[in-house]
Amino acid sequence: MEILEGGVTSPCGFKAAGVTAGLKRSGAPDMAMIYSELPCKVAAAFTSNLFAAAPVEYDRDMLAKGGVFHAVVVNSGNANACTGAAGLADSAATAAEAAKLLGIAQDEVLVSSTGRIGVPMPMDIILGGVHKAVPALSEDGGAAAAQAIMTTDTRPKSFKVEITVGGKKVTVGGMTKGAGMIAPKMRPARPPQATMLSYLTTDANIEKCALQEALEQALDLSYNRITVDGDTSTNDTFMLIANGAAGNPEIKAGSAEAALFTEAVAALAGRLAREMVLDGEGVSRFVEVNVTGAPSDRDARTVAEAIANSALCKTAWFGGDPNWGRIVCAAGYSGVQFDPKKVNLDLAGMPAVRNGMDAGVPESELAKAVSVREFSIDLNLGCGNGKFTVWTCDLTHRYVEINADMHT
Amino acid sequence: MEILEGGVTSPCGFKAAGVTAGLKRSGAPDMAMIYSELPCKVAAAFTSNLFAAAPVEYDRDMLAKGGVFHAVVVNSGNANACTGAAGLADSAATAAEAAKLLGIAQDEVLVSSTGRIGVPMPMDIILGGVHKAVPALSEDGGAAAAQAIMTTDTRPKSFKVEITVGGKKVTVGGMTKGAGMIAPKMRPARPPQATMLSYLTTDANIEKCALQEALEQALDLSYNRITVDGDTSTNDTFMLIANGAAGNPEIKAGSAEAALFTEAVAALAGRLAREMVLDGEGVSRFVEVNVTGAPSDRDARTVAEAIANSALCKTAWFGGDPNWGRIVCAAGYSGVQFDPKKVNLDLAGMPAVRNGMDAGVPESELAKAVSVREFSIDLNLGCGNGKFTVWTCDLTHRYVEINADMHT
Repeated sequence: MEILEGGVTSPCGFKAAGVTAGLKRSGAPDMAMIYSELPCKVAAAFTSNLFAAAPVEYDRDMLAKGGVFHAVVVNSGNANACTGAAGLADSAATAAEAAKLLGIAQDEVLVSSTGRIGVPMPMDIILGGVHKAVPALSEDGGAAAAQAIMTTDTRPKSFKVEITVGGKKVTVGGMTKGAGMIAPKMRPARPPQATMLSYLTTDANIEKCALQEALEQALDLSYNRITVDGDTSTNDTFMLIANGAAGNPEIKAGSAEAALFTEAVAALAGRLAREMVLDGEGVSRFVEVNVTGAPSDRDARTVAEAIANSALCKTAWFGGDPNWGRIVCAAGYSGVQFDPKKVNLDLAGMPAVRNGMDAGVPESELAKAVSVREFSIDLNLGCGNGKFTVWTCDLTHRYVEINADMHT
Repeated sequence: MEILEGGVTSPCGFKAAGVTAGLKRSGAPDMAMIYSELPCKVAAAFTSNLFAAAPVEYDRDMLAKGGVFHAVVVNSGNANACTGAAGLADSAATAAEAAKLLGIAQDEVLVSSTGRIGVPMPMDIILGGVHKAVPALSEDGGAAAAQAIMTTDTRPKSFKVEITVGGKKVTVGGMTKGAGMIAPKMRPARPPQATMLSYLTTDANIEKCALQEALEQALDLSYNRITVDGDTSTNDTFMLIANGAAGNPEIKAGSAEAALFTEAVAALAGRLAREMVLDGEGVSRFVEVNVTGAPSDRDARTVAEAIANSALCKTAWFGGDPNWGRIVCAAGYSGVQFDPKKVNLDLAGMPAVRNGMDAGVPESELAKAVSVREFSIDLNLGCGNGKFTVWTCDLTHRYVEINADMHT
């Protein structure tokens, strides 16, 4: 599936905006809006952090009502988390103001926030931003919206994919932000965990349950696989918004068309997730950790996450140090049971460990192989068919710098 | 219990040495030996990492035989881990050489290693070191031994405590090394997990089971509580070595004397563990994380560890940023169930969170409170009587520097 330049306004019938409300000291854009005149079905997943932010609680309530939606308002610069009843009222007031200006009902608007936890929302700035965003809505607004949801991201992340359903072109566009507080652990039944906001729009005409199914399957092949720092945010949100403007015959759950649509969503979400890791805070290397031969997929995931979140592995990768000892060490303390003597490990396609011991490739060769922007680790535990892949990154001076600085 | 200057040669009848075998490029001392002419009972705990290093496997086998011991040989600079059957033979050969020179049996010698994983032991250097160490053994050798077990430690860590049992002075001395790959998760039934070597010697006359009990209880109040980076080594070793030279009436398990002895061991191990964190790789701040009000002690531990191992919390501490949002966020994703609205948090004794929301203390005051070398975090989850304390540290540029550098 080819990933194309594009974004949330690539599908028919969507407008978007990105404006400066004034939440960020830097003066950078900090409010995005997505709007469809046609009513939208929305599938969504949210953080499983117990300290779910006010907008997450608000959206969950709105989605539980089962209605249709026309707009999403997203602010960066303040998370509206740990803000109690006042925070919830602020989310509602934001939705109400957008609804009033758009001529729709309040419960047809969803809201998201990202930024610092525990700071009351400056509602004059938020409402001022809504007033700027509505008139700025445009069919070309996808790029501006992708810019406005950024926090410590260094670049916007926005793409589209296209498929054909019943002779009609169906487009899925999407944008995401990430950078820090990025951790996997998403399962269809368990909503995403990571400081990420991700919005996918589509003009597909599709059954609600097929839409939800596509979102859940895409999770497993995208956000499900990533970790930057193992920290899981209070505000994570992944939405798939469908307005039916493509005019295709309705995609039914379980059909070949649903499978194709799911493939498109997964491809787009996968690319966005990958870009999120590549643009993680201070990242200098992208590392794919493939664990195979585990007792179960779940065990493979546990091992892959132990490696991906190991401070010692991540700093070694930063240094271009093959140091396979740290990798097998992390596997060894992960809690998963296996026989160390059966373990094989390849670094960037070169044998590093055979039967739990050094494979004999000179360290200088391994060092050269891992001193690249992207490489993979293939760890075979030799004791089953379980497998899992995690996408992660190194731990750099820049990560420490960004996060030791106050107010990020 | 007063902690005094001293070390492994403070108790009667112990000699020690620290010499340069030549394993470290720096030329720093890299081999320590502890020796007692009187036979010793040894209680011990080892890493639970599946990739247990050769000396760990070797010592486990020796200890399982239930005999007595006279000597321990410790090298830094090479972990002898992931070295297969050859590694095990190297551990045996090291013990055999020391035994030969000391005029004792091979199975009366224990061995430990710390350093890089996966590198074959240079046995000429190791055996040469043994030949240097034996003649260097001295009743004043504790300080040299504490120096020789260091890897990325910046200073030796060595103390003693004294108690009186049946009118006789009983001394417990100890040394430890730590710095990186430091994580807690030790339980009496589960041996220690951390890149740590810790040797406690005592001249106490004590039943074997009382000795083991003292070691296990001390674990819970010391190494059990610490994490530097959440990484768990292949080589962790904690030994308590008793030669009975004090001549006290034998300390029986369950007696008041056993309780006093345990208290002494726990006090010494606690201080050594604390010093290990304070001397952790690149550490600039020591943070005590007290979690109370949890559903269970186990839950409290899970929450405390999530906070202590969070890259975002640790970098915030480095920056002197009170950022309590990251702390409650870590509690929220730990997997433990509680009501966020009942959570209270104090930072360095100042209220930061009340009922899940900002407590109203100006951030500048909180920032001042946490911009110190040592402070505590008191998190009350408000939903039970479970509690646990973890000792940890910040994540600094220096940590990244040390661990991104090859060959550490």
